[in-house]
Formats: sequence, C-alpha cells, structure tokens
Amino acid sequence: MTTRLDAQIAFLNEADKLKSITRATTLADGSRAENSAEHSWHLTLYALVLADQAKPGVDISRVIKMLILHDLVEIDAGDNPIFDNVDHVAVAAAEQKAADRIFGLLPPDIAADLRGIWEEFEAAETDDAQFAKSLDRFQPPMLNLAAGGGSWTNYNVDEATIAARVGSKIKIGAPALWDYAQNRIAAFFKSQGSN
Amino acid sequence: MTTRLDAQIAFLNEADKLKSITRATTLADGSRAENSAEHSWHLTLYALVLADQAKPGVDISRVIKMLILHDLVEIDAGDNPIFDNVDHVAVAAAEQKAADRIFGLLPPDIAADLRGIWEEFEAAETDDAQFAKSLDRFQPPMLNLAAGGGSWTNYNVDEATIAARVGSKIKIGAPALWDYAQNRIAAFFKSQGSN
Ligand SMILES: [Ca+2]
Repeated sequence: MTTRLDAQIAFLNEADKLKSITRATTLADGSRAENSAEHSWHLTLYALVLADQAKPGVDISRVIKMLILHDLVEIDAGDNPIFDNVDHVAVAAAEQKAADRIFGLLPPDIAADLRGIWEEFEAAETDDAQFAKSLDRFQPPMLNLAAGGGSWTNYNVDEATIAARVGSKIKIGAPALWDYAQNRIAAFFKSQGSN
Repeated sequence: MTTRLDAQIAFLNEADKLKSITRATTLADGSRAENSAEHSWHLTLYALVLADQAKPGVDISRVIKMLILHDLVEIDAGDNPIFDNVDHVAVAAAEQKAADRIFGLLPPDIAADLRGIWEEFEAAETDDAQFAKSLDRFQPPMLNLAAGGGSWTNYNVDEATIAARVGSKIKIGAPALWDYAQNRIAAFFKSQGSN
C-alpha cells in the first residue's frame, strides 16, 4: 500500500535528479558547469540577501518557494541555455508535460499547492514572480563576471546580446540590479578589448 | 568605493564555494557524492513537501530560511560526516569563526539578520529549528535507501548506530518521520542478510 508519506518521498527522490541537470553557466571559480539544484539553492540565497531590491509588497518567502521549485521541470524537459535559440512554444509544452508528471507524484493537495506556485512563477505576472524571474536572470552574469567570462565566452556573446536577452528581463523585477550588472558587464567587455 | 550592493554580491560569490563542499552521502542514484549546496536545496524542498509533519505553529518559511543558510559555515569548517567521531567543541568553535568571516562579508543589517537565523538553527531550541534539524537528519537515510546503502555501506554502520546517531535527532522535531525511516531501514538491513 502506498501511503501519503510514500508519495511524498517518491517525489523527493525524483527531485534528486535535478542535481544531475547541468547548465551553461559555470561555478564562480570556472571549475565545472553548475547544476540546476545548486543553482536553485544559490537563487534562494540571492532572494534572502537582495530582498531590499524587491518592490514594496513583495513576499520574499513566496519568492523563495518559487525559486526552490522553478527548475524541477528540467528533470524531464532539460535546461535551455538563455543564449540558445529555442522554440518557446515547444519548450512550454514540454515543461507542462513535465509538471504533470513530476508534481503528479505528490498527494493531490500538495501537488495543487506547489504547482500553483510554479505556474505563478512561469506566468511572471505578479510582483513576486517578476522578482524571482529577475534573480534567475541576474545570478548567471554575476557568476560569469566572477569566472572571467564563463558562458559568455563559451557562447561567444556580446554586450548587446546580454542586454537584450538578460537585461530586459532583470529590469522588470529589479531595475537597480540591471544598472549594477550593466556597469560591471561594460567594464568587463572593455577590459577584454576587441576580443 | 565598495557599495552596499558590492558587499551583497561579494557574499553571494563567496557562498558559491558551498557547491564544492562534498558530503559523505551520495545522490539517490549513487553516481557521486552530494555537495552541500544541492543538499541545502533538497532540504528546502523537503520542508515544502513535508510541512504536514511539523508541530503546530512551526513557520515553514522560517524553517526554509534556516535550511538555506545552515551549511554555509562549511565553506571554512568543512562537512563533518555524521558517522565520524569528531570533537564537537572544536567543530563549534571552527563554525563560529567561519560564521564571523562569511556573514561578515554582508552589510551589517543583513549580516545580523541572517546570522540570527543560523544561530537559532544551531541552538536547536525552537520548534522551527528542531524541525529544520530533523529534516537535515532525515534526508540522508532517504538517499541511502534509494542508493542501496550509500554512506551506510561506506562507513560500515549498523541499524543500532543509525538509530543512535540519526534517529535520536529526527525524533525530536518530526517523530513520525523517524517511525517511517526506521521501518524502511529495518527492512533494508533485513534484505542485506548478515552482511
Ligand atoms: Ca547539514
């Protein structure tokens, strides 16, 4: 007989696979690719530490819950590097299918609760979700700057591409973080000369 | 000039090192050792999913904050596997020194706030901290069961040792989780025969 607790543990064991989903971004020391589980942890710490950058009324505890859950669908759908050109409709469909399967492992009441938080993040309409999304876009440039290029070097991207793909999103939920990142990114590319 | 935001980012970059601190526990598939950053993420998910196991009045959002922060001191002090015999006074002193340095990178107001949450976890006196501690002890046996032995095999521990070192702690904040774990652990060791 499968008990409620068996279902909760089955979900938590399945979630363990997020530790094996690798991202385009490297660790700050450049030693290896970051995985999506440790990335999610790092983002929850970003939310705690950068709470003063959120709009008034943002509920940081809810932002943290979104960030804990935001990448779980990658277990089935994989990570899509931000500088890749992907079919957004196909990705969204794959992620919905993944959410059905993965949240579906949980007892229905918990599944509904956690899926609701994830859907709010995905929709990016509430202030909480927009702040969470901004942090998700702000952390990779901080790692790339620390690593001396990181995924920018590997994907051969320039400042304008970063502003278009990353800056435009950070600005929505955390405009001062984009100002900060933009200045540091400009200084980085200047230091690289015409490379 | 170092701005407030520079200090916040310096802390977040330093925290990145937790992704390189390895633990005795393996991933559920046994493929490699777990690191303390992804372990911390997994525990935050345990808190979300197992909230119904907390005593009435436990604040799950505060539990999650503790779990995000709980292992940061390992960046300087390292992880102490639960089945190792360590000098607890020396470990506590090393962790306090680590907390001074690592939280000290933050602007003072944020440092005081986050250090307070970490100290509450360490003291294990409040219901929130005791639930967080119970989850920290409950996750490794779930991974070991999934991996078919994991750190139990590597450390050659028996059921009585697990009950003494792990069970005694899980029981404090989440007694039904220890009942569940104990039954599964007993079945696991029975299946191993007299090995
Ligand atoms: Ca721990």
